[in-house]
Amino acid sequence: MATSPNSPTLRSWIDIPPHHDFPIQNLPFGVFFTERRGPRLAVAIGDYALDLYALSQYGFFEDLAELGDAQPRVFRRRSLNGFLRLGRPAWRAVRQRVSELLRHDNHSLRDHEEAVRECLVRQRDVQMLRPVKPNNYTDFYSSIEHATNVGIMFRDPANALLPNWRHIPIGYHGRTSSIVVSGTDIRRPNGQRKGPDEALPTFGPSRQLDFELEMAFVVGQTTQLGQPVPIEQAEDHIFGLCLFNDWSARDLQSWEYVPLGPFLGKNFGSSVAPWVVTLDALEPFRVAGPVQEPMPLPYLQLPGAHNFDVHLEVALRPEGGQETTISRSNFGLMYWSMAQQLAHHASNGCNLEAGDLYASGTISGTTPDSLGSMLELAWRGTRPIPLADGSERKFIQDGDTVTMRGYAEKDGVRIGFGEVSGKVLPAL
Amino acid sequence: MATSPNSPTLRSWIDIPPHHDFPIQNLPFGVFFTERRGPRLAVAIGDYALDLYALSQYGFFEDLAELGDAQPRVFRRRSLNGFLRLGRPAWRAVRQRVSELLRHDNHSLRDHEEAVRECLVRQRDVQMLRPVKPNNYTDFYSSIEHATNVGIMFRDPANALLPNWRHIPIGYHGRTSSIVVSGTDIRRPNGQRKGPDEALPTFGPSRQLDFELEMAFVVGQTTQLGQPVPIEQAEDHIFGLCLFNDWSARDLQSWEYVPLGPFLGKNFGSSVAPWVVTLDALEPFRVAGPVQEPMPLPYLQLPGAHNFDVHLEVALRPEGGQETTISRSNFGLMYWSMAQQLAHHASNGCNLEAGDLYASGTISGTTPDSLGSMLELAWRGTRPIPLADGSERKFIQDGDTVTMRGYAEKDGVRIGFGEVSGKVLPAL
Repeated sequence: MATSPNSPTLRSWIDIPPHHDFPIQNLPFGVFFTERRGPRLAVAIGDYALDLYALSQYGFFEDLAELGDAQPRVFRRRSLNGFLRLGRPAWRAVRQRVSELLRHDNHSLRDHEEAVRECLVRQRDVQMLRPVKPNNYTDFYSSIEHATNVGIMFRDPANALLPNWRHIPIGYHGRTSSIVVSGTDIRRPNGQRKGPDEALPTFGPSRQLDFELEMAFVVGQTTQLGQPVPIEQAEDHIFGLCLFNDWSARDLQSWEYVPLGPFLGKNFGSSVAPWVVTLDALEPFRVAGPVQEPMPLPYLQLPGAHNFDVHLEVALRPEGGQETTISRSNFGLMYWSMAQQLAHHASNGCNLEAGDLYASGTISGTTPDSLGSMLELAWRGTRPIPLADGSERKFIQDGDTVTMRGYAEKDGVRIGFGEVSGKVLPAL
Repeated sequence: MATSPNSPTLRSWIDIPPHHDFPIQNLPFGVFFTERRGPRLAVAIGDYALDLYALSQYGFFEDLAELGDAQPRVFRRRSLNGFLRLGRPAWRAVRQRVSELLRHDNHSLRDHEEAVRECLVRQRDVQMLRPVKPNNYTDFYSSIEHATNVGIMFRDPANALLPNWRHIPIGYHGRTSSIVVSGTDIRRPNGQRKGPDEALPTFGPSRQLDFELEMAFVVGQTTQLGQPVPIEQAEDHIFGLCLFNDWSARDLQSWEYVPLGPFLGKNFGSSVAPWVVTLDALEPFRVAGPVQEPMPLPYLQLPGAHNFDVHLEVALRPEGGQETTISRSNFGLMYWSMAQQLAHHASNGCNLEAGDLYASGTISGTTPDSLGSMLELAWRGTRPIPLADGSERKFIQDGDTVTMRGYAEKDGVRIGFGEVSGKVLPAL
């Protein structure tokens, strides 16, 4: 039997420092572009991207029946979508094969100088693309700490959580066109703002630009319209996870969101990390979520550990300045699990499509330094966040770069998510 | 100078009865499929679909420089998207050429027996597809009558319109995966329902299934992220319009929608008509919208007539029974115009993509028989709608077929939209 690609004892012949985000146990998927190669699907290993198209051209996937006749062309697309549509057996077969090829005791790629030169490219030499072309993007609201904080600030501290919140994994549809890959600048949006003391709205640059620390899961299996997904099968539809920054203009949002939800306060841009960590790689990091009280309805019940222990942090760097870590949170805290989110989403027959993104909602912890947005960290502007350069922030300023990072770690193995980063440009 | 394709004096050599939806002045675009041909872009003329790929193969578009090297392949796609991306000059050139070829005094196609046989297919012999592949779908809420009615029923009759409504063309993102073409059955959704007198929600079939009478516009031009669209240019981005039914499960919606908006109450299915009527064909039907008070902010100001006088109606047919027209409304009533919706949508830099759908929101008139949803027509179940077969309806029952039709008419010329129709199947 083949060794599990997750085994902590695996070592690669590629030199990877300890605690690196991308050891041989991780093998996240992404898409890069170079002038010479065009777009290529790839797996991250250490500081390298392993070009799956090139690997395929050298015949290393030739015997993988799971790929059918889709290879090699499925590996030179501008998104993972086509690969995702091949299904879980194909994802697993490729990850297993890549794991074998990268093991220190496997010489088939290692000793093939030309193939190594062609297949392994330094990540710093390529442009990473958005990993999927999302046909649909849903943003959930599944952190009880975040929902409570927002309720305290904007509604009633005594009844911070709305009556539906503990029954429904609340979510809403977001905009796909403006989802950009990490490293893309974000233009501060203009929009209508009306403060509580102002009689009329005005139009101009948002004064309350914010980030939201989120994780997004990528759906890998398309379902039929009208067909729900039983919660026991929900995780089978999930390919993997990536870091996600749901930029938010709080002033635009608070004026526009009643009664149909967030719109221009969100859709000017969302940033996604380039590497998607497979759910398979995260298997060792399952943890139970919080106890749910009341018990959810049967279609949302799933015994067992369906959260994932992923450390998260947010750093802010002013233009030309140094970085300050302003929040540390954990994905394991989520009240509603991904399985519950997915089962709920499909419970009315809504069809899921390969490449869809489903974001968690802001992931806030229980302490003041573990909150997932500036809104909460600076508590609606009342307790400014100190930065290393001596300045402080209530919201994000022009020139600021926000970077989110995340990893799971155990037995000396780190399954890292890389980062999602974006710099804010002044409004037009 | 070429005769305008809109001229009321134009006649076709194809036999088209008076008041037909698709005279030579209309020429709406769609996509059909047959086993032999595969997918084909087409223009509706009378009871026929004119196969644009076949026309192109016979060389009828050969001299249209506006098509570049995209023809003929752009005409055998499964959606209009590729054609839309060619831009307005290409849309106009094709419509102008088709108009010329179909004129009673033009013999170039008419006398080419083989080409006529190959290019003209009866609509009843083909399967119509969803006309666009929408990467993004936004639903607005732009009828003041509808927003007021909902406010009266669910909030405060004395303050039915929320404070932001007259300042912002309120909208939210919808689900693209579940948008289906007219004729596709709609499965009644299951979901969480909690009545005001119930302590806890239950999961089961929606008891308040509804339609929403809407029009959707198709965006034909992709814009850059970060770049707004000045309102003077907004209509240049609009390719055309089609009928749209935004099916809604009112009980699911009312329990879930606070604070992030409609979700599973809407995303189980939306129906779109197969034919997209160009904005060019609607030029003669411009009307001024209602006076806007207060004056909107400058980025939403556009003098002139930017509404369109389109008669709309909704009919309901029980299983095996006869049809009853239950509502007659008009698209010209919209408080916010499409130009305002589009300019608002892009005002924060949100990028638009060719093929996007932007629905109007429910189009309700001022009289009890002109309301655009069952919710309003039966006033939350308090005044059931009588049907021709003696039965009545508070909401939609299993087996009911809802059909929406629309047309603009003047000088003996009808620019019709065909219909959008869907039958409701019982919940799983």
